[in-house]
Amino acid sequence: MLINNNSYQSIWLNRDNSIEIIDQTKLPYELSTVTLRTCQDAEIAIKNMQVRGAPLIGVTAAYGVCLQMKYDASDAALYKACDLLLATRPTAVNLSWALQIMKSELKSIIPSERSNAAYRIANKILSDDVDCCKKIGRNGSFLIEQIYNKKKSTVNILTHCNAGWLATVDWGTALAPIYYAYNNGIPLHVWVDETRPRNQGASLTAYELGSHGVDHTVIADNVGGHLMQHNMVDICIVGSDRTTTNGDVCNKIGTYLKALAAYDNKVPFYAALPCSTIDWSMNDGIREIPIEQRSSKEVTHITGVDEQGNIKTVRIVPSEDTKAANYGFDVTPAKYITGIITENGVHNAKQLVGSRSEAIL
Amino acid sequence: MLINNNSYQSIWLNRDNSIEIIDQTKLPYELSTVTLRTCQDAEIAIKNMQVRGAPLIGVTAAYGVCLQMKYDASDAALYKACDLLLATRPTAVNLSWALQIMKSELKSIIPSERSNAAYRIANKILSDDVDCCKKIGRNGSFLIEQIYNKKKSTVNILTHCNAGWLATVDWGTALAPIYYAYNNGIPLHVWVDETRPRNQGASLTAYELGSHGVDHTVIADNVGGHLMQHNMVDICIVGSDRTTTNGDVCNKIGTYLKALAAYDNKVPFYAALPCSTIDWSMNDGIREIPIEQRSSKEVTHITGVDEQGNIKTVRIVPSEDTKAANYGFDVTPAKYITGIITENGVHNAKQLVGSRSEAIL
Repeated sequence: MLINNNSYQSIWLNRDNSIEIIDQTKLPYELSTVTLRTCQDAEIAIKNMQVRGAPLIGVTAAYGVCLQMKYDASDAALYKACDLLLATRPTAVNLSWALQIMKSELKSIIPSERSNAAYRIANKILSDDVDCCKKIGRNGSFLIEQIYNKKKSTVNILTHCNAGWLATVDWGTALAPIYYAYNNGIPLHVWVDETRPRNQGASLTAYELGSHGVDHTVIADNVGGHLMQHNMVDICIVGSDRTTTNGDVCNKIGTYLKALAAYDNKVPFYAALPCSTIDWSMNDGIREIPIEQRSSKEVTHITGVDEQGNIKTVRIVPSEDTKAANYGFDVTPAKYITGIITENGVHNAKQLVGSRSEAIL
Repeated sequence: MLINNNSYQSIWLNRDNSIEIIDQTKLPYELSTVTLRTCQDAEIAIKNMQVRGAPLIGVTAAYGVCLQMKYDASDAALYKACDLLLATRPTAVNLSWALQIMKSELKSIIPSERSNAAYRIANKILSDDVDCCKKIGRNGSFLIEQIYNKKKSTVNILTHCNAGWLATVDWGTALAPIYYAYNNGIPLHVWVDETRPRNQGASLTAYELGSHGVDHTVIADNVGGHLMQHNMVDICIVGSDRTTTNGDVCNKIGTYLKALAAYDNKVPFYAALPCSTIDWSMNDGIREIPIEQRSSKEVTHITGVDEQGNIKTVRIVPSEDTKAANYGFDVTPAKYITGIITENGVHNAKQLVGSRSEAIL
């Protein structure tokens, strides 16, 4: 997608086989990139959320394995790299999915050929991700177009967190239908949940949409219900970090609350995700999905720019000792989800198991 | 309630008949007071939210009329003062309630006696507020005690925004039952919604509870649903800025989302309010209550303290031009509210009309 009229992806391969990423901890105040030269660089980038978003984490981890294979392509090094990369973020299923592909394909290849093979596989994961997101965009844009055809005026879409191109390689998941519809000239406006505590909506989603020219308004996470009560939202589209076979959607904390409000006000609520995000081993999202707890400092402190343009962190609670809890995700039960948009089409969340063959193959 | 082991109220009368308020825009980083000497000082204090919370706004407005009567006790001055004070905040019904009392009582008194009478009436509104909140505390604490008697371990209470003693004169509304139960030795813990965009939870509620010694944990507004899904909340208690006769509760934006989650997880959800907050002229909260829209800067910028202890404001969106919307309140339909705690008892929200005689008289 566009930044200052230049096309960007969130991660790319340099000529020297190092990996370049956009440093998302600096956005939206500064567009800068970081070069990953070792597997440990990739681990740190994932852990510190310089890259974030389930699909992008998967691609970065795959390249992390490549960077390890460049230096040491032994079985021990392969397994250790996969274990360390897997431990960086506990919730996103794409991480284990991508590492599983790398490990299973590479272990049947002799070590001397593993480095080249690793890059080939990782490049394929990257290009498949772009294709996949574009298809999600096309499939989801039909829903937006339907609303427009009926309403004949600007379609108002609410999204939570950042499931845009910065969370994938390009296009995004939840934002892909928005970009696709926008590029096709459908008038739309996006309500952007700021998404506390890390504010990926206020920073990344607003940055992405603004850079691409899409009309949007940032709101506090508390506002969506009020907007839906007053017919100011036509459709909600969110991403997903893990989706269980019964259609429960694990996504950024707070998604569940918006789904409840959408259900209460008969606003269609969709999760857009690549099939790789579906965890076929689980069928009860609330009981089975481990929810990452992050540092309380993400709640008690907040980062922004001051009047001089310097990035500053301020504390927003009474003292350094104030306790805070920071759960990263929640689970929205399938019954509150109108449909799941994937690269293969739009599925009924409650019938996801039945659609496995068509959705995954 | 206590700050550093000293008893405080949020507003008091000085010996020279000026009014002293705790400047709530400085909290939780600095405890400082402001002296109101003119009616205009009172208007500014309400408008800039140096005082906030429906009951405290009412008391401050009443004293605003006193300050006007001191200088000019004519009919014209009385009416003008009431009009200007009424225009400071559009949502809180206590404001018009308190001003109505001042106006109707004073207009039947000759101007030369109005100043003394005004202080007498305003002092009565203040002391009635303290009594009323204490009764709300007693009535609500029975609910907490019931849960404790059944559970035999710490009661987890979720609250939104600040409906504590800082929002009233003393005790608070939503927090009054918590203080009452805590003072009676019931083990409890409070989940404090930070309450974006103005963060009254993270700043004021955390400050109040911490100063009084009540165990609490600050959470992002997105978290409550997840906690309720995992049985980590036993009861929700919120305040109300206006309640309609059909039991719809208008309160800080985001309250509705928590009520939906409580309903979905069978967690009891109570609004605690003085009967003066009930607007008997309205019976459809969503359609009839005007919702205040505030400056978008409250969303796009945030204030805290930096490492040096200086109060700083930072921008958290991509640019100064990023659009933001700021709706101050939302309406929770009565069907999601387990009960309304008032000074007269605990009422069924859906039968509020029936309880009018006992509740109001």
